[in-house]
Amino acid sequence: MAEQAFVEVGIQKVARTDSGSTLETRQDQVAVEEPLEIRLGYGPAEQREQRSISITMRTPGQDAELAAGFLLSEGIIRGSGDIETVRPAGSPVGPMMSHNVIQLELRSSVAVDLARLERHFYTTSSCGVCGKSSLEALETQNAPALPEHEPRISREIIYGLPDTLRKSQAVFDRTGGLHAAALFDAGGNLLALREDVGRHNAVDKLIGSQLWADRLPLSDKGIVVSGRASFELMQKTLMAGIPMLVAVGAPSSLAVELAVQFKMTLLGFVRDGRFNIYSGAWRLV
Amino acid sequence: MAEQAFVEVGIQKVARTDSGSTLETRQDQVAVEEPLEIRLGYGPAEQREQRSISITMRTPGQDAELAAGFLLSEGIIRGSGDIETVRPAGSPVGPMMSHNVIQLELRSSVAVDLARLERHFYTTSSCGVCGKSSLEALETQNAPALPEHEPRISREIIYGLPDTLRKSQAVFDRTGGLHAAALFDAGGNLLALREDVGRHNAVDKLIGSQLWADRLPLSDKGIVVSGRASFELMQKTLMAGIPMLVAVGAPSSLAVELAVQFKMTLLGFVRDGRFNIYSGAWRLV
Repeated sequence: MAEQAFVEVGIQKVARTDSGSTLETRQDQVAVEEPLEIRLGYGPAEQREQRSISITMRTPGQDAELAAGFLLSEGIIRGSGDIETVRPAGSPVGPMMSHNVIQLELRSSVAVDLARLERHFYTTSSCGVCGKSSLEALETQNAPALPEHEPRISREIIYGLPDTLRKSQAVFDRTGGLHAAALFDAGGNLLALREDVGRHNAVDKLIGSQLWADRLPLSDKGIVVSGRASFELMQKTLMAGIPMLVAVGAPSSLAVELAVQFKMTLLGFVRDGRFNIYSGAWRLV
Repeated sequence: MAEQAFVEVGIQKVARTDSGSTLETRQDQVAVEEPLEIRLGYGPAEQREQRSISITMRTPGQDAELAAGFLLSEGIIRGSGDIETVRPAGSPVGPMMSHNVIQLELRSSVAVDLARLERHFYTTSSCGVCGKSSLEALETQNAPALPEHEPRISREIIYGLPDTLRKSQAVFDRTGGLHAAALFDAGGNLLALREDVGRHNAVDKLIGSQLWADRLPLSDKGIVVSGRASFELMQKTLMAGIPMLVAVGAPSSLAVELAVQFKMTLLGFVRDGRFNIYSGAWRLV
C-alpha cells in the first residue's frame, strides 16, 4: 500500500486510571475512505455505449486493479485482453487528491449483456460521487439539526458500552457472524439492539425500530456499533438526528470528516478502558 | 433476534494437538444471509409510481424496520406518518422461507425527489434477487470450472495463514481500519496482498492485480481474508477460478451454500491453532 491509504488526524486519547481517567492530545492515522465510480465503454465502434456501472467507497490506490477485478467477478470480462484502455477520469478530489472516476474501454469484440449487468448489480445505501459532494449532498438533504450539547455522557459510561453490547448480542454468541448496533441513553442503558450480517442493515433496523415506535428525533441518544465506523454509518446516524456514534473498531477518514463537519461526537477503539475521540469531545463529562 | 437469524450446518472442526491434529464432525450455526429488495410506491393517486430502490444482503427479520430506517437515512421519509402501508411481497425463498421483497406505499402527499434518489444510491457488487436465483445466476454466468482436487494444502499451513497475513498488513498497523485479502499457494506463501476499507474491494484489487499480470486462472491458489466470509466474497473467489477461501472470521449461510454447490473449500474461524471446515474437506491433507 502507498501513503495514500491513511491520513493524519488530531485526536484525544482517553484512558481509565485508578484515580479517574487521563486525556492526551495526539496525532493519529485513519484509513482513507473515498468513493470511486467505475465507467465502462463497450460495443462495436459504430454503436459505442458508455455507462456508469458501479460506485463504491474504497481506499484510494490500485484503482485499475479494483475495476478489473470487479469486471471479472461480474462475468463481464475474462482477462486483461478484453480491456483496451484504462485511465483515471474526473477531477481529483478528497484529502489525498485522488481521482474519483476510472474509465475503462473494452475491446469492441467483447459482448456485454446489458440485461445481465442490470440484473446482477444491487444497491446499498447512499452517497454522492465524491467525498466532498457527499457531504454537500447531506446538507441539502435537510439533515436534522443536532443539539449542540446533548447528550452529555460520562467517560465511565463509554468504557462500559462494548461490554453491555456484547452481553446483549444473542445471535453473535451462536454464529460469531453478526454485526450489532444499539441505541443507548445518557445513563448508558441499551434501549434497543439489532444484529445483521451487514453493518449498515443493523443500523437501519435499529433506527427503523425507533421510527415505527414514533420515538424520533433521538437527539438525546447515542449509537454503539460492534465494528468499524464508516461514512455510511455516520450518515445514517446523522439522518436519524443522533449526535453520537461509539465504535468498538476504527473509523475511516470520511467518517471523521462527516463528524467534524456536522459537529457530531465520534469515538473509536472503545475497548479495555480506553477510547479515542475523533470529534465532539464537548459531549463527554 | 428470532430463530430466523441463524441456520444449522454440518461442519468439521480441526484443532492442532501435540501429536498432529484432531478432526470431529459437528453441527454448527451460521448467520443467515439473504437478499431483500425494497420496492417503493409514491406520488399522487392519479400518477402513482412504483420503483425498486434497493437490494441488500441482510439477515431476515425486522424487514419493515430495515426498510423504514433505510428510507429515513436517505432523506426520503421523515417519520412513520409518511408511510401508508408496508407488506412483504414476492415468493418466500431461501432456507428460512422468508420473503425477499418488501413493498412500501408512501402517502400521496409525500414528495419524492427522483433525481435525488438516483444521485444518492450507489451499487456494490453483484447478486440476484434471491439466494436461489443468485446461485442459478452464477451457473449461467459461466463460472470457471474448478479443479476437483487442487490445491492440496496441509492443515499446518492453514493454521499459519492468519499470522502470515497479519504480519504483512502494512496499513492495518497504522490505522486498525483495513480489511485484507491475500493470495497464497499450496506451500503457504503469500503471493500478493491488498487492503481496503471495504472487504469486497480488497478482494477485487487482489484478483485485479493477478488479472493485469496475466496470471489467471488461479486454480491452484487460495484466498485468505482478515474478516468474515460473505456470499459476495465467495462469488468473487469463484469467478476468479480460485477453489479455496480461508476466513479468520465466520461465514454466512449463503457463503456456505455457494461453497457446497460449487465444490469450493471454505474454512472459517481460522485462529489459535483451530479452524472449521464448511465445505471441501478433500483439499486438505
